[in-house]
Amino acid sequence: MRPDRAFFDRLADSARGETLPRFRTGLDVVNKDAGGYDPVTEGDRAAETAIRALIEAEFPDHGILGEEHENVGLERSSLWVIDPIDGTRAFISGLPTWGTLIGFRENGRSVMGMMDQPFTGERYFADGKASWYRGPDGERQLATRACKSLSDAILFTTSPDIFEPEDKRCFEAVRGKARLTRYGVDCYAYALLAAGFVDLVIETGLKPYDVGALIPIIEQAGGVFTTWDGGPAEQGGAVVAASSRALHEEVIAFLQAS
Amino acid sequence: MRPDRAFFDRLADSARGETLPRFRTGLDVVNKDAGGYDPVTEGDRAAETAIRALIEAEFPDHGILGEEHENVGLERSSLWVIDPIDGTRAFISGLPTWGTLIGFRENGRSVMGMMDQPFTGERYFADGKASWYRGPDGERQLATRACKSLSDAILFTTSPDIFEPEDKRCFEAVRGKARLTRYGVDCYAYALLAAGFVDLVIETGLKPYDVGALIPIIEQAGGVFTTWDGGPAEQGGAVVAASSRALHEEVIAFLQAS
Repeated sequence: MRPDRAFFDRLADSARGETLPRFRTGLDVVNKDAGGYDPVTEGDRAAETAIRALIEAEFPDHGILGEEHENVGLERSSLWVIDPIDGTRAFISGLPTWGTLIGFRENGRSVMGMMDQPFTGERYFADGKASWYRGPDGERQLATRACKSLSDAILFTTSPDIFEPEDKRCFEAVRGKARLTRYGVDCYAYALLAAGFVDLVIETGLKPYDVGALIPIIEQAGGVFTTWDGGPAEQGGAVVAASSRALHEEVIAFLQAS
Repeated sequence: MRPDRAFFDRLADSARGETLPRFRTGLDVVNKDAGGYDPVTEGDRAAETAIRALIEAEFPDHGILGEEHENVGLERSSLWVIDPIDGTRAFISGLPTWGTLIGFRENGRSVMGMMDQPFTGERYFADGKASWYRGPDGERQLATRACKSLSDAILFTTSPDIFEPEDKRCFEAVRGKARLTRYGVDCYAYALLAAGFVDLVIETGLKPYDVGALIPIIEQAGGVFTTWDGGPAEQGGAVVAASSRALHEEVIAFLQAS
C-alpha cells in the first residue's frame, strides 16, 4: 500500500517544525567534512529524526535512506529517501531556496515525492500519477514547459564550481547554447522546472537523497530526469532534468559529444 | 522634508500590484537589448509607472532616476532612484529572489531605501538612521554580522559570468579565501547581508538604480558599501558590500593587490 498525500504532509509538517524555527537565527554550524566545508545544522538532524519516527510508526516494514542518519532496509521494496534540508548552504545564508525532500521508491523506482519550502510556504508533490503545487498563490497541477530547443532554454545549476574539469567543459558547451543560465538554488530549481519556469537543470556529484523526491515531481509534471548518459537517476551522480523529451534528447547528445 | 515610511510602503504596495500578479504566469518577455539577452517584462514597466505617479503627485519638486523610463531632474537635491524589478532574470525563472528597489538621495548621497519582495512578503527598509525588516516571521531592526575576516565570510555574487577577465581574476582571488561562495539572487543577497546572514557581496557593471536603495539599507545596518577602490557607490559600477569595516578593508586591499 502506498502512502497518501496526508501522510506526506504530516512528514513535511514535522520537519518544518524543526527547520523553520532555526532558520535565520544565526545557529551554530557543524563542519562534518574535515576536508572541506559541509555544514550540517542541528535542524537538519532533528528534521530527519522527526520524519523517521513517523515513518517507523506508520510503515515499520519500509526501508529508509537518509542524509543524516544510518540507512535502514535498503533492500526492501518500499524505500523512503530523505534529505531533511537540501541546500544547507542556502539555509545558513538565510536564502529561502532550500527544501525538505521526501521521496518514496517502489522496487527501485522513484514513484512519489514531496519538496517543501517552509519559509515561502510552497509544497511540490508527486502523487504517483501527477504533480501538484500548493503555495501562497493557491493550488494547481504542475506541468513543465514545452521547450523544444536548447536555444530557448533557461538553464540552472547550483554552482559552476561543482564541476570537475572534464564535466565543466561539457557543461560550458551546453551553457554556451542556452538562452539564459542561472546559478544557485539547489532543489528549488527542480521544483521550478516542474512548475514550467525553468527548462533544464544540469548537475554532478549528487547523492540518492538529493534526487529521490525530485525525480517523480519532474516526471509526473511531464519532464525527463536521467543521468548524463540517459539512464535512471535514482543513484544520483551526474544528472540532467529537462522540461521536454526533445530538449532532453538534444542535451544528452550534446553532453555525449562534448 | 524627507518622505516617511508610510510613503515608501505606498510606493512598494503600488509596485507589488503590478509585479506579483504577473509573477509565474508565463508572460511574454521583451528583448530590449539587441546584442544580448536583457529581458524586460510588462510588470517592470508598469511598476515603475505606478511608483512615479505617486512620487510626482506627492513630491513634484523631486527628481526621479529609474530603469525603465526617462530620468527627470537629476540635478535636484532630492532624487528618487528606482528599479521596479531588480533581478528580472530571477523573475522570469519563477525564483522569488528579485525585488523592487526604491532609493532616496539627498544632495547626491543615498539616505533612505526600501527593498520589497512581494512573493515572500519581505520588506527591508532604511529610514535614514536605522534599517528594519518586516516579513512573515515578524519585524525587527537589522544588524550586519561582525565578521572580522575573509576566511570566515560568506560571499555572494550574481554570476561568475558577469566579470570581465581582469575583474574575474580579482574576484577569484577573493573567492579563494572566503569560507563559502554562493551565486545568484541579485538584490536579495544585499538584503541578507543587512540582515546578518551574508558577509560580502562583490559585483561589477551595476547601474545607479541597482544600488540606490541598497546602500542605505546596508550602511544603516552597520555594513559598508563602496566601489572596489573604496569610493562612494552611488554611481554603481564595481561594488563591494561588507558586513564590517574590518572585512571591507581586508577585501579592498585584496582587490587592489590582485
